[in-house]
Amino acid sequence: MNNLPFAKITPRVAAELASIVGERNLIYADSERLQAYSHDEAAHCPPALPEAVLKPGSAAEIAAIMRLANREHIAVTPRGAGSGLSGGAVPIHGGIVLDCARMSKILEIDRENLTVTVEPGVITSEINDALRPFNLFYAGYPMSLETCMIGGNVAENAGGGKAVKYGVTGRYVLGLEIVTPTGEIVELGGKLVKDVSGLNLLQLMVGSEGILAVFTKIILKLLPLPKANVDLLCLFDSVEKAIAVVPRIITVGGIIPTAIEFIDKLAFSTACEYLNESLPCGSSEAMLLITVDGADQEQVEKQYDVIGEQCLAAGASAVYVADNKANSERIWRIRRSIAEAFKVFSPNQSLEDIVVPIAAIPAMSKAISDISQKYGVLIPCYGHAGDGNLHATPVMPPEWGLPQWERVLPAILHDLYQACKALGGRISGEHGIGHKRKQYLAETVDPGFLNMMRSIKTALDPNGILNPGKIFD
Amino acid sequence: MNNLPFAKITPRVAAELASIVGERNLIYADSERLQAYSHDEAAHCPPALPEAVLKPGSAAEIAAIMRLANREHIAVTPRGAGSGLSGGAVPIHGGIVLDCARMSKILEIDRENLTVTVEPGVITSEINDALRPFNLFYAGYPMSLETCMIGGNVAENAGGGKAVKYGVTGRYVLGLEIVTPTGEIVELGGKLVKDVSGLNLLQLMVGSEGILAVFTKIILKLLPLPKANVDLLCLFDSVEKAIAVVPRIITVGGIIPTAIEFIDKLAFSTACEYLNESLPCGSSEAMLLITVDGADQEQVEKQYDVIGEQCLAAGASAVYVADNKANSERIWRIRRSIAEAFKVFSPNQSLEDIVVPIAAIPAMSKAISDISQKYGVLIPCYGHAGDGNLHATPVMPPEWGLPQWERVLPAILHDLYQACKALGGRISGEHGIGHKRKQYLAETVDPGFLNMMRSIKTALDPNGILNPGKIFD
Repeated sequence: MNNLPFAKITPRVAAELASIVGERNLIYADSERLQAYSHDEAAHCPPALPEAVLKPGSAAEIAAIMRLANREHIAVTPRGAGSGLSGGAVPIHGGIVLDCARMSKILEIDRENLTVTVEPGVITSEINDALRPFNLFYAGYPMSLETCMIGGNVAENAGGGKAVKYGVTGRYVLGLEIVTPTGEIVELGGKLVKDVSGLNLLQLMVGSEGILAVFTKIILKLLPLPKANVDLLCLFDSVEKAIAVVPRIITVGGIIPTAIEFIDKLAFSTACEYLNESLPCGSSEAMLLITVDGADQEQVEKQYDVIGEQCLAAGASAVYVADNKANSERIWRIRRSIAEAFKVFSPNQSLEDIVVPIAAIPAMSKAISDISQKYGVLIPCYGHAGDGNLHATPVMPPEWGLPQWERVLPAILHDLYQACKALGGRISGEHGIGHKRKQYLAETVDPGFLNMMRSIKTALDPNGILNPGKIFD
Repeated sequence: MNNLPFAKITPRVAAELASIVGERNLIYADSERLQAYSHDEAAHCPPALPEAVLKPGSAAEIAAIMRLANREHIAVTPRGAGSGLSGGAVPIHGGIVLDCARMSKILEIDRENLTVTVEPGVITSEINDALRPFNLFYAGYPMSLETCMIGGNVAENAGGGKAVKYGVTGRYVLGLEIVTPTGEIVELGGKLVKDVSGLNLLQLMVGSEGILAVFTKIILKLLPLPKANVDLLCLFDSVEKAIAVVPRIITVGGIIPTAIEFIDKLAFSTACEYLNESLPCGSSEAMLLITVDGADQEQVEKQYDVIGEQCLAAGASAVYVADNKANSERIWRIRRSIAEAFKVFSPNQSLEDIVVPIAAIPAMSKAISDISQKYGVLIPCYGHAGDGNLHATPVMPPEWGLPQWERVLPAILHDLYQACKALGGRISGEHGIGHKRKQYLAETVDPGFLNMMRSIKTALDPNGILNPGKIFD
């Protein structure tokens, strides 16, 4: 990669960019409007102002932008909805932000091939809204589906609540039209369930965080819409007991639930208090929120009976069944309100995203508790137990000032990530590395892995202009 | 990539190789024993003799071999069971063949994390034999599971009969220990269901056909063993009707079968004749062999009722249900015997592996029939309808001599692959490109895709010594 500083966008270059995307699709020399593109949803990631924002309308326009950016050596940062949690869309080297919002069409629903083809700027929930009448759905969506864009989901290989049964975004990406860092338009994959015709560059692109390509068209695989589902809330007096039940459900019960969410006592009780929710958690230390879905009510009932039995056999103190929308919503609202509830307690928190082998969750939970005590900082923990993906979230003590928090937080994260590494884990399960976690990635993975990533980046982006400074240096 | 011819293995280098793997794990200057390593199971792929075969016992030995091979500029071709169907394990540039057969241990069955860790030389069916007592199974195995090795399956991203429901090999690969072309040992992934900590090099390695790395340890994800299954044989008087039912089962029926195999009349009747099987196919032009599995008999029965209804509604002339082992075996034996049956008719055939969007199967079937007539060559067609993956198999007319066959076959394959491309398909769904199909790959994919593959290969294997001459030139 080229280590020279990037060039600035001169008025001459800005005029040339305007000629590519049209005057009204360029923001330049307007710091007020540029401000909105200086950050994403990751806290503790310093904002950075782009010099220009472009809103291209086609792959051809993006290809022309990339060729110009190579010629002029200008950094280019692709951006979806800006809802990312790792600073991936922050233009830390200035230059151009590519805003995908104008490319927001659902191009085709193909009911014979069970695919949907979309542009990157489609809001993810709109895809399932469009599919519902056909009894089909796209199963790869993350929990932020109402605000995020599908292009960002593919760039981050977004996860979500249903990953135990349905996997994450990448499992559903069958084809991509991409613009390479050097400005070529390339088709990868297609409406094909299977394809081994050449290296799997399609899945290399998924989760590449905008450093290897810009996505301009996405073909997604569809599944039949489940006709019934039920939620269970299971209370346990220890994290160990709660986690031990996860493999039992799968091996002894023979069932793969749709979701197995984990919430610790601190997160649960804070969210309940915030919501004025009176669900009795008693002396429970851990809760599992388990969802099952299926082709009919009978199959779903059979599944939740088995899961309930396994939970009680594993020592659950109570199992609540929510088999209607109102009750389901009551339970899920607790899960979704945790971050908000802690914001009332303290506005500064660092939403983390560690992932460990499922069986290591109790040990990780213990490590989190030790780190919490060591630094005198609350670290509520919740997340996707079925995947080992935990959103441990250090929360700034309200009595601290920001300078103290910003001095101590890196030490907390260092300890958290090292504990995670020691248990065979990684620092991000679904939010990505981006700018926020890159120094920690280098500390926690095989150096050979870093070298290979750098070689591939240099091979595909010889001038290092596409989303520079993300994932690794 | 370095285009210089590769160096020969001198007795001095052979002695050095012996010091790495031990004298008895080296075959050198023994053309009779080397002969066995000159081919795989791909017909029409010229054999090539290696100069040495090494049987390493560890990643460290393989790393030492790779470093030596780089220093001396010797080609290295990794090899599993040699059961591949694309010439991928044929040492077309001579040099070293790395035989993985000694690395054949199942290292760990982890019932808490639902993973199994294996060495590359384990015979694939042995994995499921070892898992059965724990009610677990590895779902990614191909149809050749009794003879192939798991390392080869990962290198080819092998498919199989269960891909509709369970996906292919790659979905189950959670972690790899690899040796890079330059001789470094690198860990990718782990016992993690989700992981976005850096680029997805894990899935780039899956299906890389031995050109990017040698796999030395593989972590696979496990699923609960289904407790019941049933097979259906459904007869149709046209390919169109047979294929139209596939999306209906999924969308209207809300069911994802385990397998949806397609067999055309020619393949079916030839296999039945070969087996002395009297299953009445009457005037049927196409058969679907559909398998469903589930957690209990009741669930499976409900599924096959729905599938049977959908088949009859779509115009099936008959639906046979095989709900016991003897009947299932009777049906599957037909599917498995097709290639053998045609060998009796003519010993020379070219087993192809095209993949098209599911809805394009009737058009592809028509194109195959046209090509068959144009060249006066039978092309039976069978395969995985649920995936659009068809083993169209040109069979040499018994009255032709080999020279005529070898002159005409490339034209047949050219027409077949162009027809496939025109329908949005690709030339290999599960067998790989290897040596056999590389010129056809170049003719049927986006040139930008080829360029990106070449850049990545050069970045990771600067001397171009690992399995040279495969996938692309």
